[in-house]
Amino acid sequence: MPDYQAPVDDMVYLLKEVFKADEVFAQLPEYSEINVDLARTVLEEAGRLCANVLRPINLSGDIEGCHLENGVVRTPKGFKEAYKAYVDGAWPGLSATPEFGGQGLPRTLQILVDEMLSGSNLSFGLIPGLSRGAAETIEAHATQELKEKYLPKMIEGIWTGAMALTEAQAGSDLGLLKATATPREDGSYTVSGSKIFISSGDQDLSENVIHLVLARLPGAPAGSRGISLFLCPKFLVNEDGSLGSRNNVNVGSLEHKMGIHAQPTCVMNYDDSQGWLVGEPNRGLNAMFTMMNAERLFVGVQGLGLAEASYQTAASYAKERKQGRTPGGKDTTSIIEHPDVRKMLLTILSFVEAARALTVFTALEMDKEKAHQDEATRKTASGLIALLTPVVKAAFTDFGFEATVLGQQVLGGHGYIREWGQEQFVRDARIAMIYEGTNGIQAQDLVVRKLILDDGAPVSTFFALISQTLSESASQPGAAAIAAKLGAALELLQNVTKKLQKGDFANATDQNAAATDYLRLFALVTFGWFWLRMALVTLAKGDGADARDKRKLTLAEFFTTRILPQTASLAEQIEAGSKTLLALEADAF
Amino acid sequence: MPDYQAPVDDMVYLLKEVFKADEVFAQLPEYSEINVDLARTVLEEAGRLCANVLRPINLSGDIEGCHLENGVVRTPKGFKEAYKAYVDGAWPGLSATPEFGGQGLPRTLQILVDEMLSGSNLSFGLIPGLSRGAAETIEAHATQELKEKYLPKMIEGIWTGAMALTEAQAGSDLGLLKATATPREDGSYTVSGSKIFISSGDQDLSENVIHLVLARLPGAPAGSRGISLFLCPKFLVNEDGSLGSRNNVNVGSLEHKMGIHAQPTCVMNYDDSQGWLVGEPNRGLNAMFTMMNAERLFVGVQGLGLAEASYQTAASYAKERKQGRTPGGKDTTSIIEHPDVRKMLLTILSFVEAARALTVFTALEMDKEKAHQDEATRKTASGLIALLTPVVKAAFTDFGFEATVLGQQVLGGHGYIREWGQEQFVRDARIAMIYEGTNGIQAQDLVVRKLILDDGAPVSTFFALISQTLSESASQPGAAAIAAKLGAALELLQNVTKKLQKGDFANATDQNAAATDYLRLFALVTFGWFWLRMALVTLAKGDGADARDKRKLTLAEFFTTRILPQTASLAEQIEAGSKTLLALEADAF
Repeated sequence: MPDYQAPVDDMVYLLKEVFKADEVFAQLPEYSEINVDLARTVLEEAGRLCANVLRPINLSGDIEGCHLENGVVRTPKGFKEAYKAYVDGAWPGLSATPEFGGQGLPRTLQILVDEMLSGSNLSFGLIPGLSRGAAETIEAHATQELKEKYLPKMIEGIWTGAMALTEAQAGSDLGLLKATATPREDGSYTVSGSKIFISSGDQDLSENVIHLVLARLPGAPAGSRGISLFLCPKFLVNEDGSLGSRNNVNVGSLEHKMGIHAQPTCVMNYDDSQGWLVGEPNRGLNAMFTMMNAERLFVGVQGLGLAEASYQTAASYAKERKQGRTPGGKDTTSIIEHPDVRKMLLTILSFVEAARALTVFTALEMDKEKAHQDEATRKTASGLIALLTPVVKAAFTDFGFEATVLGQQVLGGHGYIREWGQEQFVRDARIAMIYEGTNGIQAQDLVVRKLILDDGAPVSTFFALISQTLSESASQPGAAAIAAKLGAALELLQNVTKKLQKGDFANATDQNAAATDYLRLFALVTFGWFWLRMALVTLAKGDGADARDKRKLTLAEFFTTRILPQTASLAEQIEAGSKTLLALEADAF
Repeated sequence: MPDYQAPVDDMVYLLKEVFKADEVFAQLPEYSEINVDLARTVLEEAGRLCANVLRPINLSGDIEGCHLENGVVRTPKGFKEAYKAYVDGAWPGLSATPEFGGQGLPRTLQILVDEMLSGSNLSFGLIPGLSRGAAETIEAHATQELKEKYLPKMIEGIWTGAMALTEAQAGSDLGLLKATATPREDGSYTVSGSKIFISSGDQDLSENVIHLVLARLPGAPAGSRGISLFLCPKFLVNEDGSLGSRNNVNVGSLEHKMGIHAQPTCVMNYDDSQGWLVGEPNRGLNAMFTMMNAERLFVGVQGLGLAEASYQTAASYAKERKQGRTPGGKDTTSIIEHPDVRKMLLTILSFVEAARALTVFTALEMDKEKAHQDEATRKTASGLIALLTPVVKAAFTDFGFEATVLGQQVLGGHGYIREWGQEQFVRDARIAMIYEGTNGIQAQDLVVRKLILDDGAPVSTFFALISQTLSESASQPGAAAIAAKLGAALELLQNVTKKLQKGDFANATDQNAAATDYLRLFALVTFGWFWLRMALVTLAKGDGADARDKRKLTLAEFFTTRILPQTASLAEQIEAGSKTLLALEADAF
């Protein structure tokens, strides 16, 4: 199995040449000292950790899996040492607030590191990833007392966090959940209920696990407006910050999953656990959703990271493996000379590099939303993030999964064999299409809520950005073919968008029926936009374009001629409406 | 996990109403006593075996897997009993020649039974499936002496067969294989070499395993024209048919696979094994390829069977699972009321039922090829089979895999959990895109060889059949929309076909670049053809159409409006040619 190499050069290319990140950070007082050189240093250091520490235990961790022994979860061999290295490198606090010991670096750097974690060892990467989500939720909603008690150790990484939402009967529809919380005299609560699919629910890496648990207060309204959020630590914490007695927070079992075997996904039982309210009563979902954009961006990036990892193995194999002859040729050749094999590799690449561009774009908007001094800029950023979050989550994980399947196919029979690593990427990638809101639900969010958000301002802003790049490209004859195809695809997208916003399909049923096709159409146009932008970067350099620049231009041509045409069929499918979907009675299935 | 129900009614519908199988069989003297009533009896009996014996050990077999103990492969709990039931029911000889004890039933029935085996327990189904392939190869090419010695027990099922082709350096390109065979004085050969990915290479179900091994004779030409085929039994067979001493045919290891864990896929070592030549020297690939059409049809049907199985679980779950509200509604509802969930189920269904129709169509042509008395009919059948074989193999396994992924998605988080069974179908289905010639190679076969076979006669015949249905539909206004969309898609297909045969893309590089998109386009048009045919069956009944008929019409509308539009983008992608695929140096990957 080839090594993982963090794609630092491609990341820096995006920061520097496509997004001019130095100029962005210069506008943000909090990040004014951040620049691309610093970013490269951080990314290279993270890349070394991922390549040298995390990737070597990815396959072995998959094979060994986690084990539950006497109520305690044991992670696979090497995970303890790896986690120690992760903590020693201060990675848990990379983007966390300096107020509680974090380094306060931008989201943009964090998310690029997240891509590497996902690509080198997703099972591991989920542990700090979810812990960060829990810490950010506490930071945004908990009392100062809770923050001071829990955040420093979570940000240091010696404690970790877990998010306990799902119950057997309440998955996508959290309004159905039944866990309860009753007040105690000391202001804390007694939390009871059983939760499933709890990532990092327990492990032997951190000294304490801080669970954020959704539960209902006595007399709370039914449905999603009667849910509150509670902090239930595995070990109670004494006044001086030392660990006290064991809280009644127990692992019922480890889930038997298709992939991410080294990730301790637990059934958790909270049996009269002691917990503390986070945020307002009955506003628990709200508190959770504050962090949802960041979490969903992280999940999307998991699809991207695994696609990159699968690509690296596939490309390396394709260059080495001798099999068959070039079309019309006579000598045995490396399979990379077969156009069909190249098509698979280019399909992966043209997704990976455009998705990474969208990642950086979105993360920079998040940094602006947080740190820009101009309110209008913050508002625009906020709208774009809301709009793009479901696209990133669902499209990256759908295309990312498909990319790992292609990367597996390049290896032929070896792709199906565990030792080569490709089949693990497929199994690991599959979960990202499901958790943190299934991709179907992301599509509903995009179509039902985000298209009409703020009277449609974010989507109009976004389309205007694409149109602006199309206008800029008019002066570059070398980009004419790419721009023409993108322009046509954008027009299709804008047409169906109008129909979904307030035209023929602006009703709940047609929106629901259109959603997944629409999200895919939206994502393809967005990827096309970034390919045009990268092509323009190359063309602007004229004779100064180097090999990397020329490669981007070729990839842009590949994407627009070989992938973007899917937009035509997606638009036609959406135009079919919901009629045939509803024609059958449920019993006919 | 819900039970598996063999889709016998849908199979009988196809035989009776769409293909009028009674009339076909009546023209074939060998099968003149076969009719749809008999077929139903056989299918129902097979369905009971699959539902009651094979499905219950599918998940447990996946969890337990096979084990190699002291050189002997142990299959999971229950497999011995199941195999005994299979043999007791005389299923191994269902379509085998009566000359050696088979029942001599048509291929059409066999392949429908194969769908059920694949859907209920693919790991198990591969054992008799590959054994049949080996027996058919022996029947077609071995000496009468070898046939008499081996076939009766293989057809009875107390011995099984295995096909040993692939070596570590020789997969898709068998011309690179290195195993050797040297003649002995008694007319047998000493066979030596190591083979990988050998399905059913060994197990504890049958008394003997008959390996068909590809190897090179001394002085054989290099490449694929210097390969011969040898029969190497695990146990040598005495003159009286009893088992003699152990041959040197050894399991090196069990492959660690993504799926089909209960299937004993072996690394096999032939260390000076005794073997007997099958067919002519240096014509071993030819002997193997005789059986390839039947084997590839079987592999295609694996994708279909698993898609059906995944559909059954998904539909059952969607009707039970309460989550969310209908669009615009207020009460919690079964998720089948969400249009997006229906779209997933209908996507699977519209593939499954059209693919099953193509299966029956192709198998009936195989029965005609074998048993029709008119030479021209046999020749037409032969051409259609050659044309459709790569389409069935690749399209059924590509779409079949995608269908299992959708079926998994319907279950949300539960889809990722082993106990629910859906993730196993995904893992099991994945192999069928790879083995028996990767789907990329199937596409090359279609474009490079099959389109120009017999000067293009088979593909012209096939398109003429579709056009004929389109003409027939002119008198049915109810089919007008479906026919219009199919007609447009057929035109796209015919246009690119011409370019690939002798137009702009009739060169090896462009053909290679177009192949996978072309095969998918071809398959979609073919599925559309069968949907139109099924719609016409319904419409011809007028008021006499029952619920099943009306359901077919709805599915036809769904397919043509929601899936068939993909043909437009596929045609556009093909028109892009090979230029961007070859623009980069191999080092740029």
